[in-house]
Amino acid sequence: MLHQHRSQFPALTNKIYFNYGGQGPMPQGAMDAIIQTQAHIQELGPFGTEAYGWISPQMKTTKEAIASTLNVPSDTITLTGNVTIGCNIGMWGINWQPGDHLLLSDCEHPGIIATAQEISRRFSVEVSTCPMMATINAGDPVSVIAKNLRPHTRLVVLSHILWNTGQVLPISEIADTCRKNNSLLLVDAAQSVGVLPLNLTELGVDFYAFTGHKWLCGPAGVGGLYVRPQVRDLLNPTFIGLNGLIVNSQGQPISWQPDGRRYEVSTLSTSLYMGLQEAIATHDQWGTAVERYQQICHNSAYLWQKLTELPHVKCLKNSPPESGLVSFQLTNNQPNAELVKFLESHKILTRTIANPNCIRVSVHYLTLESEIDQLIATIKSFLGL
Amino acid sequence: MLHQHRSQFPALTNKIYFNYGGQGPMPQGAMDAIIQTQAHIQELGPFGTEAYGWISPQMKTTKEAIASTLNVPSDTITLTGNVTIGCNIGMWGINWQPGDHLLLSDCEHPGIIATAQEISRRFSVEVSTCPMMATINAGDPVSVIAKNLRPHTRLVVLSHILWNTGQVLPISEIADTCRKNNSLLLVDAAQSVGVLPLNLTELGVDFYAFTGHKWLCGPAGVGGLYVRPQVRDLLNPTFIGLNGLIVNSQGQPISWQPDGRRYEVSTLSTSLYMGLQEAIATHDQWGTAVERYQQICHNSAYLWQKLTELPHVKCLKNSPPESGLVSFQLTNNQPNAELVKFLESHKILTRTIANPNCIRVSVHYLTLESEIDQLIATIKSFLGL
Repeated sequence: MLHQHRSQFPALTNKIYFNYGGQGPMPQGAMDAIIQTQAHIQELGPFGTEAYGWISPQMKTTKEAIASTLNVPSDTITLTGNVTIGCNIGMWGINWQPGDHLLLSDCEHPGIIATAQEISRRFSVEVSTCPMMATINAGDPVSVIAKNLRPHTRLVVLSHILWNTGQVLPISEIADTCRKNNSLLLVDAAQSVGVLPLNLTELGVDFYAFTGHKWLCGPAGVGGLYVRPQVRDLLNPTFIGLNGLIVNSQGQPISWQPDGRRYEVSTLSTSLYMGLQEAIATHDQWGTAVERYQQICHNSAYLWQKLTELPHVKCLKNSPPESGLVSFQLTNNQPNAELVKFLESHKILTRTIANPNCIRVSVHYLTLESEIDQLIATIKSFLGL
Repeated sequence: MLHQHRSQFPALTNKIYFNYGGQGPMPQGAMDAIIQTQAHIQELGPFGTEAYGWISPQMKTTKEAIASTLNVPSDTITLTGNVTIGCNIGMWGINWQPGDHLLLSDCEHPGIIATAQEISRRFSVEVSTCPMMATINAGDPVSVIAKNLRPHTRLVVLSHILWNTGQVLPISEIADTCRKNNSLLLVDAAQSVGVLPLNLTELGVDFYAFTGHKWLCGPAGVGGLYVRPQVRDLLNPTFIGLNGLIVNSQGQPISWQPDGRRYEVSTLSTSLYMGLQEAIATHDQWGTAVERYQQICHNSAYLWQKLTELPHVKCLKNSPPESGLVSFQLTNNQPNAELVKFLESHKILTRTIANPNCIRVSVHYLTLESEIDQLIATIKSFLGL
């Protein structure tokens, strides 16, 4: 059954793919939806009452499909081009005052770090970094956050699943801790949406930024941001356009849209969003979010176990990962990049990570045990075993 | 020959299209390029050395195609999702100080107005609006700007072609005037790119924001921003991501990219940009930028003349437009929206504008005189003539 389901993903037919955390393979149906949407919009318009009469409900349905993967009302969703834009909306939208504090973990993406530095420069905000990487096998992420919160911490920015080590952070407990300090919590969900079964309302996060092109297997160029309705009025729009505005009869802006649209700017690609909607539907055909997550954990545990048994290989985690990311290092002084190159020459796609210096293998529910076996055999061959 | 060229645009086959200023029809070749790019990326990756080895030169070529339409070096170009995002990059990136002044015209798009208002609120900047609409038939736009500049005017935001009235502003002279006042000039080029033959270096603008989906007839969701190299270091990146950064061996951001990439954020849709590249190539097959502009002016003059001859119709301009936008009003108290609706029921697509209250007809080099004749005949029918 998985074999049949996989046959809908052309990228999986000519290689062994372990870069889901970089970009997911698109189902053929998603690519077809993009083509069909484009053609249909040309037939109706592209610009005019009839075209917009068709596009508007389609975009609404796409937003509902996205919202359903997060278990939130669809009016909490802002469409963005990628996860980094969602994080930027959250980070720039705070009403920063000089002396405010912004807390990051030491495992955040370079774009987030640079954004924090620029916000610090522009608004005289203090930025500090807490040592989360060290909690991968010991220590308590919640107490790390608690220790690093300050009286003036306005915002905490953290990944749900650390993109380098694959560690899953206890976001619900962290959200409680932040709330008690009157600090808002922005979560970089690049590696968690499409992996974890989610209920953001229960999770208690304020902002949750994600992308459609990784674990959801949609096209590059689509993503979104969840904003908790109770904190919407605390988050100002920064980049602004007609999509986020209410205008009067003279076309003058008089107010923000009352929902997630207020952070949207202007013209989006309807066809790419229709592709994402189709990708989400494809996953749902295979199984529920819980079933897919169980399969991901099954696959990552299988891979972790096999890697652990290899000499000259050290997994970063000393227990099976709770995500689809399995990161490991070579302990025999061979460069990680050489192994990645060797694997790619065998049509096995993985990637290196700079910090910590490691190789990251992503497994999805789509991954076959036979693919993992072949990865292990090829690593063995590289190691001369 | 134009008939044959037009046959490449599916949207033009089943209607009479006058909404180029809203969204341009895509050539079939552009839609095919999107599909083929998507399929090829799936074949190679989608994520990995081989995929990026292919994507990177493709994106470079697209940037060169865009730059060639503006007659600027390709490293001055930032890829954005649409024109509004480009304007936001220019408006937010100024190192605003309390008491600085931002000058707009009274014909700017609601998104620009709202962005100016939010910048005013956040940075205690003064915003004022100069009366440009009134210069449509008399008065001097350059002296309007000169009169409204203040000692602390840091930025002037203007459209090259006013989206409501179709007036072409003398941007070169306005740029000189701004420069003498040490004010930067950001141009909203939504209606000028793909219409006017351009040489931005000679024009002397500092920032020029445009979209690919209107007169260039590319897909929705692609656009760009030109930043004059001499002012690049005066414009700070606001929304920030990996694409704009140089990172060290530890993945830590250490500097901005030295070119237009510094304002790019993260994952873009390569396939949409390949569609835009193909759309640009399609136009170039028909004629040069000068030839296309001559044809646009020929068409808009033909339409303007015919409209001028009609009773109960008043063109906003009292001379033939120098752009593809022809705006007119009904003088017999019938609502403009009713005429637009009537035209749409005859498969003739136009639109209303709120301020000034009018109907806007866009003609491209693709427009046929017979289409204009049919528009005029249908307006006559509406008017009972």
